Amino acid sequence: MEKIKVSIAGASGYTGGELIRLLLFHPNVEILQVTSERYLGKFVHKVHPNLRKNTAIKFCGLDDLEKCDLLFLCLPHGESMQRIDNYIKLAGKIIDLSADFRLNSANIYQTWYKKPHPKPEILKNFIYGIPELHREEMRTSPWVSSAGCNATATILGLYPLFKNNIVERTQTVVEVKVGSSEGGNRSSEASHHPVRSGCIRSFSPTGHRHSAEIEQELSFGDNVKIHFSATSVEMVRGVLATCHVFLKKKAEEKDIWKFFRKEYAEEPFIRIVKERDGSYRYPEPKLIAGANYCDIGFELDGNSNRLVVISAIDNLMKGAAGQAVQALNIMHGIAETTALEFPGLHPV
Amino acid sequence: MEKIKVSIAGASGYTGGELIRLLLFHPNVEILQVTSERYLGKFVHKVHPNLRKNTAIKFCGLDDLEKCDLLFLCLPHGESMQRIDNYIKLAGKIIDLSADFRLNSANIYQTWYKKPHPKPEILKNFIYGIPELHREEMRTSPWVSSAGCNATATILGLYPLFKNNIVERTQTVVEVKVGSSEGGNRSSEASHHPVRSGCIRSFSPTGHRHSAEIEQELSFGDNVKIHFSATSVEMVRGVLATCHVFLKKKAEEKDIWKFFRKEYAEEPFIRIVKERDGSYRYPEPKLIAGANYCDIGFELDGNSNRLVVISAIDNLMKGAAGQAVQALNIMHGIAETTALEFPGLHPV
Amino acid sequence: MEKIKVSIAGASGYTGGELIRLLLFHPNVEILQVTSERYLGKFVHKVHPNLRKNTAIKFCGLDDLEKCDLLFLCLPHGESMQRIDNYIKLAGKIIDLSADFRLNSANIYQTWYKKPHPKPEILKNFIYGIPELHREEMRTSPWVSSAGCNATATILGLYPLFKNNIVERTQTVVEVKVGSSEGGNRSSEASHHPVRSGCIRSFSPTGHRHSAEIEQELSFGDNVKIHFSATSVEMVRGVLATCHVFLKKKAEEKDIWKFFRKEYAEEPFIRIVKERDGSYRYPEPKLIAGANYCDIGFELDGNSNRLVVISAIDNLMKGAAGQAVQALNIMHGIAETTALEFPGLHPV
Amino acid sequence: MEKIKVSIAGASGYTGGELIRLLLFHPNVEILQVTSERYLGKFVHKVHPNLRKNTAIKFCGLDDLEKCDLLFLCLPHGESMQRIDNYIKLAGKIIDLSADFRLNSANIYQTWYKKPHPKPEILKNFIYGIPELHREEMRTSPWVSSAGCNATATILGLYPLFKNNIVERTQTVVEVKVGSSEGGNRSSEASHHPVRSGCIRSFSPTGHRHSAEIEQELSFGDNVKIHFSATSVEMVRGVLATCHVFLKKKAEEKDIWKFFRKEYAEEPFIRIVKERDGSYRYPEPKLIAGANYCDIGFELDGNSNRLVVISAIDNLMKGAAGQAVQALNIMHGIAETTALEFPGLHPV
Repeated sequence: MEKIKVSIAGASGYTGGELIRLLLFHPNVEILQVTSERYLGKFVHKVHPNLRKNTAIKFCGLDDLEKCDLLFLCLPHGESMQRIDNYIKLAGKIIDLSADFRLNSANIYQTWYKKPHPKPEILKNFIYGIPELHREEMRTSPWVSSAGCNATATILGLYPLFKNNIVERTQTVVEVKVGSSEGGNRSSEASHHPVRSGCIRSFSPTGHRHSAEIEQELSFGDNVKIHFSATSVEMVRGVLATCHVFLKKKAEEKDIWKFFRKEYAEEPFIRIVKERDGSYRYPEPKLIAGANYCDIGFELDGNSNRLVVISAIDNLMKGAAGQAVQALNIMHGIAETTALEFPGLHPV
Repeated sequence: MEKIKVSIAGASGYTGGELIRLLLFHPNVEILQVTSERYLGKFVHKVHPNLRKNTAIKFCGLDDLEKCDLLFLCLPHGESMQRIDNYIKLAGKIIDLSADFRLNSANIYQTWYKKPHPKPEILKNFIYGIPELHREEMRTSPWVSSAGCNATATILGLYPLFKNNIVERTQTVVEVKVGSSEGGNRSSEASHHPVRSGCIRSFSPTGHRHSAEIEQELSFGDNVKIHFSATSVEMVRGVLATCHVFLKKKAEEKDIWKFFRKEYAEEPFIRIVKERDGSYRYPEPKLIAGANYCDIGFELDGNSNRLVVISAIDNLMKGAAGQAVQALNIMHGIAETTALEFPGLHPV
Repeated sequence: MEKIKVSIAGASGYTGGELIRLLLFHPNVEILQVTSERYLGKFVHKVHPNLRKNTAIKFCGLDDLEKCDLLFLCLPHGESMQRIDNYIKLAGKIIDLSADFRLNSANIYQTWYKKPHPKPEILKNFIYGIPELHREEMRTSPWVSSAGCNATATILGLYPLFKNNIVERTQTVVEVKVGSSEGGNRSSEASHHPVRSGCIRSFSPTGHRHSAEIEQELSFGDNVKIHFSATSVEMVRGVLATCHVFLKKKAEEKDIWKFFRKEYAEEPFIRIVKERDGSYRYPEPKLIAGANYCDIGFELDGNSNRLVVISAIDNLMKGAAGQAVQALNIMHGIAETTALEFPGLHPV
Repeated sequence: MEKIKVSIAGASGYTGGELIRLLLFHPNVEILQVTSERYLGKFVHKVHPNLRKNTAIKFCGLDDLEKCDLLFLCLPHGESMQRIDNYIKLAGKIIDLSADFRLNSANIYQTWYKKPHPKPEILKNFIYGIPELHREEMRTSPWVSSAGCNATATILGLYPLFKNNIVERTQTVVEVKVGSSEGGNRSSEASHHPVRSGCIRSFSPTGHRHSAEIEQELSFGDNVKIHFSATSVEMVRGVLATCHVFLKKKAEEKDIWKFFRKEYAEEPFIRIVKERDGSYRYPEPKLIAGANYCDIGFELDGNSNRLVVISAIDNLMKGAAGQAVQALNIMHGIAETTALEFPGLHPV
């Protein structure tokens, strides 16, 4: 099989670096170009020091991009959509990792992002990038929009319950705990180590933009409301979503198992984590740092109709670069786990 | 003023150590005896190394306890209530820091602790140890039962809202994030550093016993349901409670301010933390390590009737030893902040 | 006693904030003014959030400074010496917390700081700010220059050995491990949390400027060479200096004890930490966060003439603000531990 | 090529788990059996939760071991040597990961381990397991003894200097900073999270047993003395060795480069890390968690003949399981990097 020629626009950020790491070991992919205006002409390992001795590639400029088979866009939110016509000309396939094409509705985009969308007519052509929900569409679509990291953890945790319509649609409360890499690679007062270290910081108690895509994916044509909050914790990589849903009618844990198995039994990257004892009874983000898993657990409240679903991912993997490579594999008919086999470390 | 003679039963644990630290600098208190069976005869600083050079006191046995003015009980849950009659004979005043006397109802105790209470007849004589709710009763009562740490953070965050009856009574979801010192000073597989370090561990998604005391204190004679979860995070000291409540009718943030001010304006240990900008817009547990504050913030959800209340304490201070010393001060008519002036560190 | 009127120039940094924290609880001190150009007119707690509800003071400008009894200079290195004449006019006593007046020799200053000293004639009038070495001079001198944090840990660990001339003078290797607050409160790429978190970073393997003051204080008129390295570790506050010295002649541990006792037996802020068992056999920086202690331990190498001395401080306390308040106390004949009683926390 | 049949004795520990992780993805290896008395009959992922969904293998007992091509011994120190005759019968090749066969001399073993070696006659048949020093011997020897983690970091950092005889032989000071996984998977008071978290603990200021193997490998037939200390820092995986050596004669950095290049230019797992700027100028353990690299940097002291060499590894990888798989590859004539390609994560 001829190698897929891939370029990455905006490759000096954390997501871009993770993509390079994965693609360097992908047997069917050749990295053609990686761009960075800030580090133009520098070796990739100056910015992504883990890749030292693994590649001699250097950053080029965005305007130097040549034709390729697939172009990853890892640009800051708001930039992909400004020049999407150019990128479409460069590559037959595009995977955009920003928030620009996640929402199907330009109205909802404007509500949450406070500005009109410049390309509303193509929004519906981008497939929302969670393979577990949209695998078939990905097989034939040239354009994929990667899902938000917090949204991915939440949606995968709740999808079987909303799809099968067994939970109250407007009462769900989701609390995500997130690591500092979610904020990207630019330093700020808030990311200064003495400030950020050891913190538990409620940075988005309400109003988090990922709410919009979560509600989009869980609505199934009906009204849905997710009460979402995000809290920073001491961690670099990882998301843990704790989702409190309320069952429409009484159920036992084996009933819940059934719904998760029904949707996920064949999924290579979903693991149901639910042990009776030990330290790892429920999903744990640190165990999947570098891995593409979404680990999901749950517990029924014996005193009410509440079900607590716990969902963990690595925000840079299943929440960004890993899921994007999974999409690449699907779009090219390659085995879905290719280049995504790393299982995570323990202890860590 | 003659010094209050104080002893501590079970002084080798984290709560006991924190009490010793505070009382050593209390101008009106003399520490008479501190007990530990495990460290009998050893200097206190062997177990509480921060107290080196601050005291030459040694641990004695529980059976060596002599009469004193006030006895703190820092014994494991279930032990105080077995021998409470003895302790009552030893000291005119008792502050129990276990869970044994927190619940007013023996029935509810049995439901949550899975065994009958051996002294149901005296449960109502113990004042639940949050001064902001029970200050007047403490002034005249000889017995106080310290509140649970997670319960303290939650109750103080929600008290003005439930007291003033402005929120739905059965829809509240509370997610507490807790440090490792909550588990006490005995090592286990789960507390082993390679396992516990960097974790975000959903250790009690449902069924946490503090739910019972939270509901007791927030009921105001009516039905109330708190959907409670607890997650361990990378931190030694501290609790952050994120409480999602739903307002009965539309309100603005200034209305919410009013309720918090009404209840807490004069409280020395409650701070409302709500800034427009900066890294410290909301409560942050690390800033109050060693301090007796409960910091409370809130944010209204612009898209629904949800109000998110964020509440932080140090579990060993306002959640245990600090609040107990606050009770001691009230019980003796001493200025309430005595020995509790340490404001916390920054950066840390 | 009338209160000492104190102002702080450059009070928005970490050292300035720590000084405010300590002085707010100093019974003999009144804080007159605190300056910050960046936060002019803002409440102190906007910058030092731990001080919320503890003071209503606001930052003024450097040019607004009025006469006071003692002026602390917490300005960036290189600024105090430019305008020292002005400051001298404002205050009878000055404690400078920068590196500007630590070295007695203008030549050595130029060697290490790569520029000529603008006020060489007054260098000798500044007392080097470690009370354990210069207490008597501090009692009568109006000017004190606070010692560097890494220098303080190293000097206090080695002083009894060099003073008593029992170690090789040019063979000592010192490895300090330091927290992120040493870098100050300005964020940078290196202090960005995903970069700085969990790191062990050799940031100054050779050439650290504190070497100069260490050698000055340990020389005792003779040649001395300290081979110094500094490594950043995961910690916000704290310094641990591991000092490898080589004994001139064979000794036993009790001999070493003798030298430490001889110099430090009466010192309120030096603790010799050397236990046979337990987790706290040697000094541990986290235990003294917020405290003014310098904890010192040592171990003789059974296979050679090496003695390893381990010394821990809080860089913002004994390494800066705490030691400066200790100097203030000495300069005013106040009990030396005033406002410095906080013993540190455990667990933490 | 037929798969190499491999078993692991003592596979429930951290080193055993890491071996399983690596070997599951080794194209030339089939895992036959893994033993654990404690977890007999349990699935591997109960103990190594990162391996969930990656293998269905269960632990068997030590006595159930069948014949295999290569047997890894990951037993506690002191156990391999008791039953080595049995193991020799089971497998044509043995790689022992304990300290039992690292030292060539039974006398030196007794000096450091305080007991006589039960099998002195076979000590010299075990090849000391650092391929960069002993690759050729490994190609033909059936028995390899894996090197200590701290020893590996130190030896690889210093080998080119001692081999080429350019440094003083008895003056070297080595300070290693280590993570908590070095202590193994059994919890203790010292590994209890509130105690171990955030610590900088001088746990072995002198007398560390790895000194013996370091001196053995760096002696080159001559007297050598390494003044070694070990300090625990906040980290789970990783070792950073800071080595202070003294050059026999003046040299420039390019001279030092030459010696490192001479020995390591072709080494797949050695990287010289020495940048002029940025946050990653020198080796950083966290970047190589999960990778088999030994990263080495150095800096000449402009004020003396000191050279500081900084060396980082993952203690469970290049310090144990990774280096053991590297040995397996060499012993079987397989490409040396097989199953060891993971480059490490960034950010992390």
